[in-house]
Amino acid sequence: MAKAYASMTREELEALHAELQKKYEEAKAMGLKLDMSRGKPSIAQLDMGMDFLDVLNSGSDMKAEDGSECRNYGLMDGIPEAKRLLAQIMGTTQDHVIVCGNASLSVMYDAVSRSMIQGIDGCTPWCRLDKVKFLCPVPGYDRHFAITEHFGIEMIPIPMTPQGPDMDLVEKFVTEDESVKGIWCVPKYSNPQGYTYSDETVRRFANLNPAAKDFRIYWDNAYAVHDLYEEPERQDHLLDIISECEKAGHPDMVYEFCSTSKITFSGGGISALASSKANLDAIRKAMSIRTIGFDKVNQLRHVRYLKDLEGVKAHMRKHAALLRPKFEAVETVLERELGGLEIGSWTKPNGGYFISFEAMPGCAKKIVAKCKEAGVTLTGAGATYPYKNDPKDTNIRIAPSFPSPEDMAKATDLFVLCVKLVSVETLLGL
Amino acid sequence: MAKAYASMTREELEALHAELQKKYEEAKAMGLKLDMSRGKPSIAQLDMGMDFLDVLNSGSDMKAEDGSECRNYGLMDGIPEAKRLLAQIMGTTQDHVIVCGNASLSVMYDAVSRSMIQGIDGCTPWCRLDKVKFLCPVPGYDRHFAITEHFGIEMIPIPMTPQGPDMDLVEKFVTEDESVKGIWCVPKYSNPQGYTYSDETVRRFANLNPAAKDFRIYWDNAYAVHDLYEEPERQDHLLDIISECEKAGHPDMVYEFCSTSKITFSGGGISALASSKANLDAIRKAMSIRTIGFDKVNQLRHVRYLKDLEGVKAHMRKHAALLRPKFEAVETVLERELGGLEIGSWTKPNGGYFISFEAMPGCAKKIVAKCKEAGVTLTGAGATYPYKNDPKDTNIRIAPSFPSPEDMAKATDLFVLCVKLVSVETLLGL
Repeated sequence: MAKAYASMTREELEALHAELQKKYEEAKAMGLKLDMSRGKPSIAQLDMGMDFLDVLNSGSDMKAEDGSECRNYGLMDGIPEAKRLLAQIMGTTQDHVIVCGNASLSVMYDAVSRSMIQGIDGCTPWCRLDKVKFLCPVPGYDRHFAITEHFGIEMIPIPMTPQGPDMDLVEKFVTEDESVKGIWCVPKYSNPQGYTYSDETVRRFANLNPAAKDFRIYWDNAYAVHDLYEEPERQDHLLDIISECEKAGHPDMVYEFCSTSKITFSGGGISALASSKANLDAIRKAMSIRTIGFDKVNQLRHVRYLKDLEGVKAHMRKHAALLRPKFEAVETVLERELGGLEIGSWTKPNGGYFISFEAMPGCAKKIVAKCKEAGVTLTGAGATYPYKNDPKDTNIRIAPSFPSPEDMAKATDLFVLCVKLVSVETLLGL
Repeated sequence: MAKAYASMTREELEALHAELQKKYEEAKAMGLKLDMSRGKPSIAQLDMGMDFLDVLNSGSDMKAEDGSECRNYGLMDGIPEAKRLLAQIMGTTQDHVIVCGNASLSVMYDAVSRSMIQGIDGCTPWCRLDKVKFLCPVPGYDRHFAITEHFGIEMIPIPMTPQGPDMDLVEKFVTEDESVKGIWCVPKYSNPQGYTYSDETVRRFANLNPAAKDFRIYWDNAYAVHDLYEEPERQDHLLDIISECEKAGHPDMVYEFCSTSKITFSGGGISALASSKANLDAIRKAMSIRTIGFDKVNQLRHVRYLKDLEGVKAHMRKHAALLRPKFEAVETVLERELGGLEIGSWTKPNGGYFISFEAMPGCAKKIVAKCKEAGVTLTGAGATYPYKNDPKDTNIRIAPSFPSPEDMAKATDLFVLCVKLVSVETLLGL
């Protein structure tokens, strides 16, 4: 039975430190070069989906189901069958969907950009306001925070719980402060914790009464079909925010985003935006200035390949078969090496691309630096907080998707060694 | 020998009017339904390029020439071989190029948007300025004007000549007015006239000394390889603006744009931006907030299919073989039916997608309306001017690319009939 570090005597800790330091020097000598920094699919995952490239060829019918020619200009908001497919992934209906280019991040950026420059819903463009604020559940996704920081929007951290963001705080800010114009959400298998918002959380979101008419929930449903397990009891379920907002009488309050970047190819997917008809009409109008249409050939390729939600699920089961062993390997090493030591805790998600690790206060930066020094790159400590400022310096995002299982094991071994070493040093006041 | 309408007696004109009116009623009865409104490739052109879809399949090597994985995230500014290919199309080198998504229009929009929100070159963001102006050579491309209008930028029309925009005027505005921040250019086979800027014009552009540090030339090289003829003497040549700007000591003054929308598929091409290293570095930095990377699978597909500039030219000769007869059919009908009547003039471009027609003053809107009434849709009269305001109401853009040659002949027959009818009515003061 492992002994909690905090209950060790100074001598015990010093002996442990010498031993860990020796192991660390040995690890450094191995000359590792591994990257666990980003949520990237592995080459095996990409290889598994190569038949995606066969479904369209010189013999293909290039007409969409409504007879539109996919090879030519037009159909700015997407071909009908691609709208339907991405609607199914998000759990909404195709009339709520605009299909866009290869990156949902760009769709989010453009949504914020439109509010900045033109303003939405008849409100003053944000670039003319003294103060615009976004709520940012933490830990969260660094690229969301980068968008709001880029536009000079003040970010307010909101603590996450396993049921979603602290809704008491969210309600307070959204109701009382007219300068609060949005909140970033990854509602299912959240980045980095892998938490899924509870039904109550989703309903409280839908029932928000914002002080600002142009407040929107930025609902990044990036991991909608990214289950790691086949057993129904190990799959998370997320309520459809679009219909919940409709029921609550706030149909225009949400922008939902998704993409196939982690379904087909990260370097060649399609993305979508879902919202109310009024919002979509306004967006279509603005969007028509920027493009005559997105890549409809790739939209058609996606539908011909994935077909429908059942096709997507079957495809994602193959991804899960590759991802699950890596997640489990990380969890096994963490449990075996850190269980009972009381120097860290971690999430055990049912899906998504990340595991979130909480180190002892003041340790995250040092752990990441020690890993880096020995050849394992993690997401920078602090990246999961606005302005890269994790006030307690505890959170580390682990991204098991890209390395091979063998590399993943090596990387995790080094990670737990660094956690132990930095924790001991901290307890010793070194 | 045709007699000029203006030299006819009132009786002659009245007789002619009755005859034309009768023919027009007959034409209406034919129930035509033809669209000459946009510069869209024809189905035959798209069919000709279907082998584009075969070059990538499940057996393909998906690595770029530098070993990067095209199916995964990353390489935000494009794979090296796609940079090189699009650089060759623009007549520049690959270090000047960022490869983007499927629509160059979006690349232009984003360029203006960045100047609006963040500002460029250390200058005040335009959204904080009272007045921002763009010069707009006229007639020009309606979608350019739509972008500047959308951002509330004041547009100043600059008359076009066969050698390019009136450079005396351009120099005067750019040198004297700090609120002039840009000029829209389609320098080769211009939209709609099909004019190509002379070497002198390009050099005068490169030697501009703008009052505004953040003035940029928005150089939309949309028809760089879109020759209609194979004979060298019937091919226009455009100087490379990037190197001319370097020579003139103004390397940062130009943003150049191009795409493969009218090379491979309009609904599935790639686009690019070319500029100086300093500009590209600033753009890459801003762009990294918006995307992790564009569709690299489609970039790879383009290079594997087109290979290099020789491959592009060979492909474009096949397009020309389909487009040339339609342009010539229009020109033949115009010459045969309108030659000597002195009620209109038109351009005879060596490339591009359009023919520009100049009617008698006050006639363009009426001609387009008459065509529409009889089932032939042309680009709206006025569309080729900022704010859709063609002050003399003379310009009509003819887009021969989409209809079949037979439909093109029918549409042109109707067009000349409407030109005659409206001209006679105008001379008669009807």
